[in-house]
Amino acid sequence: MSLIACLDLEGVLIPEIWINVAERTGIDALLATTRDIPDYDVLMKQRLRICEENGLTISDIQEVIDSLGPLEGAKEFLDWLKSEFQVVILSDTFYEFAHPLMRQLDFPTLFCHKLGIDESGKITDYHLRMPDQKREAVKRFHELQFKVIATGDSYNDTTMLGEADRGILFSPPQNVIDEFPQFPVALDYTALKAAFLAAREALS
Amino acid sequence: MSLIACLDLEGVLIPEIWINVAERTGIDALLATTRDIPDYDVLMKQRLRICEENGLTISDIQEVIDSLGPLEGAKEFLDWLKSEFQVVILSDTFYEFAHPLMRQLDFPTLFCHKLGIDESGKITDYHLRMPDQKREAVKRFHELQFKVIATGDSYNDTTMLGEADRGILFSPPQNVIDEFPQFPVALDYTALKAAFLAAREALS
Repeated sequence: MSLIACLDLEGVLIPEIWINVAERTGIDALLATTRDIPDYDVLMKQRLRICEENGLTISDIQEVIDSLGPLEGAKEFLDWLKSEFQVVILSDTFYEFAHPLMRQLDFPTLFCHKLGIDESGKITDYHLRMPDQKREAVKRFHELQFKVIATGDSYNDTTMLGEADRGILFSPPQNVIDEFPQFPVALDYTALKAAFLAAREALS
Repeated sequence: MSLIACLDLEGVLIPEIWINVAERTGIDALLATTRDIPDYDVLMKQRLRICEENGLTISDIQEVIDSLGPLEGAKEFLDWLKSEFQVVILSDTFYEFAHPLMRQLDFPTLFCHKLGIDESGKITDYHLRMPDQKREAVKRFHELQFKVIATGDSYNDTTMLGEADRGILFSPPQNVIDEFPQFPVALDYTALKAAFLAAREALS
């Protein structure tokens, strides 16, 4: 049996990008999330408009993101995970945002989305590669005869966790724990390592 | 447009494993390839029988493989490729053989096959994950809305190269060059980098 480990990115290996960009730039309007504006397209267009109004180019944002660094212990955890499993990171962020932090993590394989950027560095648009791409990737890995162990921290990871052979919640909010009691919960990387090993043992 | 770079392993990043194990252990019978025994199953069963007859355990073979090291310049090439593309290595080797060299390459994501190994370290069997797995992986990446640029060195890579949006032959034997004139040929990593950049440019 061959195994792929699928990891969400924000909240698992790196900090939440928009919230941190909002805090570091002091632009409070960028603090809005899907909790405030449930329609993702409306939210993203508002974010891009705010970036433009504040003259925030992709380089400015990448500089902020680079300065965040991965979560403490994330690099060591990922290095261990890569030595035990084939790792693919499944994230709904954008390649251009993730790039500075992927560099700090030695560029693990990442499936996410792309921004549209003009020559001046202005973010003009965003392109979702496909709907529900995390779950779709797990399905395709199954078709390639892999078993999948997946981990993520939030509501939008739960279709991926459900599609996987074993799903693990990492440091999730309480409402996600309550709503998805079928997934074991790991609160730090030591527990996440143990959860991956237990999932592998259960699948073998 | 999001891009995945698919790489064959033996002959592209690392030396040919069986030939080198044969040479380093001095067991000439392990030099046989599919050119000598076209039926892969017959060949593999002969190899496993020879390993058993010579008392070669998986640890012995892994030690030999570890000592080979990646091809000269392979690590630097792969590090560059990972910074520009999402990389998945597609190989018909076995995880247990590849592992020591994957460690030396910082564990890039690898799709390959598995060996059956008993408690004493004897290789008892081999398990192909699925037929034509390189080509199947490229198909699944397409279904996930990626474009694919693939490279490999030999005949068994050509279905993967044909399925990809752009295929590149790396240091192939002359008969493969002659039979597949549709694929550009790169003879070293400098040329391979240029071929990947040209392929990306052509797809954009």
